[in-house]
Amino acid sequence: MRSQDTHPAIHIDYPAWVDSVADWARTYASDEERMKLAIAVSRANVDNGGGPFGAAIFEKSGRLVAVGMNSVLRYNNSALHGEMFAFMMAQKRVGSFSLNAPGLPVHELFTSCEPCAMCLGGALWSGVRRIVCGAAREDATRLNFEEGPVFPESYKYLEDRGIRIEHNLLRDQAKAVLELYRSKGGKIYNA
Amino acid sequence: MRSQDTHPAIHIDYPAWVDSVADWARTYASDEERMKLAIAVSRANVDNGGGPFGAAIFEKSGRLVAVGMNSVLRYNNSALHGEMFAFMMAQKRVGSFSLNAPGLPVHELFTSCEPCAMCLGGALWSGVRRIVCGAAREDATRLNFEEGPVFPESYKYLEDRGIRIEHNLLRDQAKAVLELYRSKGGKIYNA
Repeated sequence: MRSQDTHPAIHIDYPAWVDSVADWARTYASDEERMKLAIAVSRANVDNGGGPFGAAIFEKSGRLVAVGMNSVLRYNNSALHGEMFAFMMAQKRVGSFSLNAPGLPVHELFTSCEPCAMCLGGALWSGVRRIVCGAAREDATRLNFEEGPVFPESYKYLEDRGIRIEHNLLRDQAKAVLELYRSKGGKIYNA
Repeated sequence: MRSQDTHPAIHIDYPAWVDSVADWARTYASDEERMKLAIAVSRANVDNGGGPFGAAIFEKSGRLVAVGMNSVLRYNNSALHGEMFAFMMAQKRVGSFSLNAPGLPVHELFTSCEPCAMCLGGALWSGVRRIVCGAAREDATRLNFEEGPVFPESYKYLEDRGIRIEHNLLRDQAKAVLELYRSKGGKIYNA
């Protein structure tokens, strides 16, 4: 017999507030609009008690496929960084373990901060063809968020496999959310 | 209103066969016994149409906390490598996003094959304090399974943070499952 103790089930869902930031019907035409959504997700996540990281996956056309918010605290699950959340939701939506499967349009990841080692590896398996980053690794580490073993060769490894990677898009806006988190964190944890 | 199309839910559960290999009541006393379980999970997964990778997380005492089987194909989810599956299940079971949270015993990961870049990064966040590997990266790449951007410095990065990493435990037995998968014409989903 299966016990709930030994056999827990994992359930992952969007938080109730997701539709206050994500507009599933519109076209996000420019890179800036797409990054603004990823940053808006990161900000809403902080406002709702989550970590300061957001991501969004679009078809190349600008159609929104999925968003991701850091859900480590919400689900007690260290794998649920914003990017990983978005990959899972996007793959579930398209019904494939690769967003680069035959017949699918090109998919692109916009993330409010440069991916950690787990998410950069996860991006390689996800099938996204382009990764656009807002805040930089050092912006996160200044908050004592670790990014793990990511090296210049790590990026090159993905680029050699045809994935385009771009940095520092709306970096200041993305960084402002990291700073918001730090300022709120002081209130919550040092009260 | 939420549409199922735009707002899919993710559900992750152990496959029905898990209890044919995992004995939740016994103590896995030695490293060899623990690795044998990880390898048995990888083999059962192949027998049931999954990828040839298995993992198990134990308390240092030998108490089994969680297992993980590559579930990329079963769930159309590229994040669900065996190790990631095991991290999620273990964290859900202990009720913390870190297996190294205060008050918890030391947790250790046994994996039938050296972790890919995603899983190595994920291991750092998971809170496991020791990683024991069966088959080697080159055993997987010989099957055209990609391992991603993992470098000697990647291991060093984890070791510098107090995580012990050991290689090649029962490597031949672990490798035999990779070869079984190849002989069955198994799908290489991230070539």
